[in-house]
Amino acid sequence: MRHLLDAGDLSRDEAVGLLDVAEAMARTQSRQIKKLPALRGLTVVNLFFEDSTRTRISFEAAAKRLSADVINFSAKGSSVSKGESLKDTAQTLRAIGADAVVVRHSASGAPHRLAHAGWIDTPVVNAGDGTHQHPTQALLDAFTLRRHLADGTGDLQGRHVVLVGDVLHSRVARSNVQLLHTLGARVTLVAPPTLLPVGVEDWTCDVSFDLDTAVDGGAPAGAPDAVMMLRVQRERMTSGYFPSEREYARRYGLDRARVDRLPEHAIVMHPGPMNRGLEISAEAADSPRSTVVEQVANGVSVRMAVLYTLLAGQDPAQAAADITRTETR
Amino acid sequence: MRHLLDAGDLSRDEAVGLLDVAEAMARTQSRQIKKLPALRGLTVVNLFFEDSTRTRISFEAAAKRLSADVINFSAKGSSVSKGESLKDTAQTLRAIGADAVVVRHSASGAPHRLAHAGWIDTPVVNAGDGTHQHPTQALLDAFTLRRHLADGTGDLQGRHVVLVGDVLHSRVARSNVQLLHTLGARVTLVAPPTLLPVGVEDWTCDVSFDLDTAVDGGAPAGAPDAVMMLRVQRERMTSGYFPSEREYARRYGLDRARVDRLPEHAIVMHPGPMNRGLEISAEAADSPRSTVVEQVANGVSVRMAVLYTLLAGQDPAQAAADITRTETR
Amino acid sequence: MRHLLDAGDLSRDEAVGLLDVAEAMARTQSRQIKKLPALRGLTVVNLFFEDSTRTRISFEAAAKRLSADVINFSAKGSSVSKGESLKDTAQTLRAIGADAVVVRHSASGAPHRLAHAGWIDTPVVNAGDGTHQHPTQALLDAFTLRRHLADGTGDLQGRHVVLVGDVLHSRVARSNVQLLHTLGARVTLVAPPTLLPVGVEDWTCDVSFDLDTAVDGGAPAGAPDAVMMLRVQRERMTSGYFPSEREYARRYGLDRARVDRLPEHAIVMHPGPMNRGLEISAEAADSPRSTVVEQVANGVSVRMAVLYTLLAGQDPAQAAADITRTETR
Repeated sequence: MRHLLDAGDLSRDEAVGLLDVAEAMARTQSRQIKKLPALRGLTVVNLFFEDSTRTRISFEAAAKRLSADVINFSAKGSSVSKGESLKDTAQTLRAIGADAVVVRHSASGAPHRLAHAGWIDTPVVNAGDGTHQHPTQALLDAFTLRRHLADGTGDLQGRHVVLVGDVLHSRVARSNVQLLHTLGARVTLVAPPTLLPVGVEDWTCDVSFDLDTAVDGGAPAGAPDAVMMLRVQRERMTSGYFPSEREYARRYGLDRARVDRLPEHAIVMHPGPMNRGLEISAEAADSPRSTVVEQVANGVSVRMAVLYTLLAGQDPAQAAADITRTETR
Repeated sequence: MRHLLDAGDLSRDEAVGLLDVAEAMARTQSRQIKKLPALRGLTVVNLFFEDSTRTRISFEAAAKRLSADVINFSAKGSSVSKGESLKDTAQTLRAIGADAVVVRHSASGAPHRLAHAGWIDTPVVNAGDGTHQHPTQALLDAFTLRRHLADGTGDLQGRHVVLVGDVLHSRVARSNVQLLHTLGARVTLVAPPTLLPVGVEDWTCDVSFDLDTAVDGGAPAGAPDAVMMLRVQRERMTSGYFPSEREYARRYGLDRARVDRLPEHAIVMHPGPMNRGLEISAEAADSPRSTVVEQVANGVSVRMAVLYTLLAGQDPAQAAADITRTETR
Repeated sequence: MRHLLDAGDLSRDEAVGLLDVAEAMARTQSRQIKKLPALRGLTVVNLFFEDSTRTRISFEAAAKRLSADVINFSAKGSSVSKGESLKDTAQTLRAIGADAVVVRHSASGAPHRLAHAGWIDTPVVNAGDGTHQHPTQALLDAFTLRRHLADGTGDLQGRHVVLVGDVLHSRVARSNVQLLHTLGARVTLVAPPTLLPVGVEDWTCDVSFDLDTAVDGGAPAGAPDAVMMLRVQRERMTSGYFPSEREYARRYGLDRARVDRLPEHAIVMHPGPMNRGLEISAEAADSPRSTVVEQVANGVSVRMAVLYTLLAGQDPAQAAADITRTETR
């Protein structure tokens, strides 16, 4: 692994390896080992062409816990906004001493160009590009599922995850469908037809327009082990996508009644930030089944795993073994 | 002490304890001990819903001198501005690994909700909320007074502080009146009637409309030991509060002539940033009696004391003893 | 040396000393010594009144590699924008614990006022002021020239550098002309008459309006050893300065054909960010003779040298000897 650009690029072994490293990272945290010296002296640059405070501080916390230095580069007001090319920005960061670049961009594919155009030789981590990919989000979701459904280290084979909502504008949905498929889980997408992307029929999942049927186990893959609500991207929507917020909440929102009809072990997930009252009710968001806050914590562990694995230049399985050794010293 | 939210919450012992810890912190600085290892591995998040560069960098410097990691979270352009609730933001920060949250908010009471709603279990420090409270400012002012009027470790009992200006929009005034009262000092507020808040008659201080009388010692509490000028919050003012800037400066501004009429030992304070020429003349601001720059330095010592005390989970008196021990090793 | 404000202030010995320190810094980097402990416990404040992400992160990376703490102070949205004076900002930073202040300002002369008004006693580094000076840029350019033309440690005596383009709005041009003259090099400015500043006839350089002549060695100083393209400051231009971008590129842009006519050893420089297609073509920017990316890397070494020299309070020659000793331990 040189970069982490696309959840679909990960082999099953790589994905499981990263989740194992993340598990080791999480264990160090729970044992009050606040900082690991693994990346001391290395510099991680957060190159954000688009605001995303949550994702930025998650990567910042992950890098700092590994003792790396962090430089935040917000492209707003920078020479980028004066028309500097992505290439020149990339080369500048490399020359300044970036050892890894975490990039967020509104244009789908920008991280891939950064990684593969030959401009820089550092690992590139995709922190979300357009409506395309958000691979660390998919990893943290898989990590959360594994902890709840498979005792932390087990297998998601045959598990069933229902993803609900604004699939069209969601890089989270695309990344999750790919990674969950790689890990052997089954996915059902539930969304109004206007919020499904072109080509969704080729995705490795089932598609439904009816949330109640999916909640009640009537989807082809049967009863759900988890329901993952997607954020409605109000800011990207123009009218015509759905009739009204009230109507959306009624048909596609997760409320108390729907939560109560889920199998007892099923968990409720959301990548955040939530629109409480729209895609998820406050009761559902705060129910004991909700893993929303846990997902955020898991995000730090997963990003530590990704940065560590890429910067150590190892395959994830080796990295997992190494970090476990560090921790037991 | 779990949190620092309100200057009025502090008992006399707690306040004196914090000032003693701050004194120990200041001593380490003056002895060129640049960093203390006390908070190594801990993460302090500066959660600023409102711009305040001065306060933010003061807390940042304080945390870094204690070897903590600092993550700055400016709510502008974040998911908060996309409608995320304070609750979700708080839980996100906790999950990301915040060990303490320093919060600045334009809404009075926001830090209290953050601390007491049960959303997070970390210490919360109020860095200014609306027109309500700014307890670390009150502490640093008390610290400055103690150093000048009471040999650093003594008592403010019976001292007389005159606070002048825009009390209505000032969280500094409210916090100072409370803390100075707790510490046994007397306070006289001097302001035009339109810049006094509703209910000021219940505050633990005297009120006057006439600066010259207060300067000359004609207030009920007698001659002032310190005059503290408040920043005129031009940006919060609509017309009607006062006739003109020139008129305001003439009646409520501290100029050279008024400084010269103060008792010889009296000091001139201002929380900054100053409107030179409005509430304070350049001559007064730069006079040898002015403690304006010193207050800023004291702010770092006081914030070190607050972070240390809260994160060590100690009562302030114990913390003061501990830091003194550290420093003498 | 107390401050670094103006490239013209540097004596030849000081300039050569700083370049030697930078050479030592660059050597530590190339030997994978990621961090030097030299400035541990010290705080460098980046005080930026004007956005300049590239320069800011270069100083930030330099300071962190020397183990200093860095506090970024962007004046936008700060009390500065509420009318705080430069004096009060400076004193605030000092009181907060700044050990050095790196300042960028849109007003020519602001760093000089900061350094010489007696407000603060810390070193001040000019990171660009108006159209006036950008001394660390001049140093990194000289450093790059030395590495290519004089084996890294040699002499620029008698070398010939052609600076091309928007001299009028360029602090880079002014600083470079001064420093190169100090180091014994000859400089030819090439620009349209409307983009030359008043008084350029007194600068220590030749002036020409014809790029082709200079490229072909027809300038009084003969064939160029380096061509340094200046960024066209579109954002500072009003119409009348030059007819059209196409016309500008044709007459003053560096394209492949012109690069091919340069002497074989001559290098192509640009301070970045580049307007590809305007002052420099993509082919010229990416040619093997281009040192654009290298200049960025050299910027970090030079800024490490400046911060180290100023904060160690040494003369540069002594600093160069010291850092070399550190590195060989």
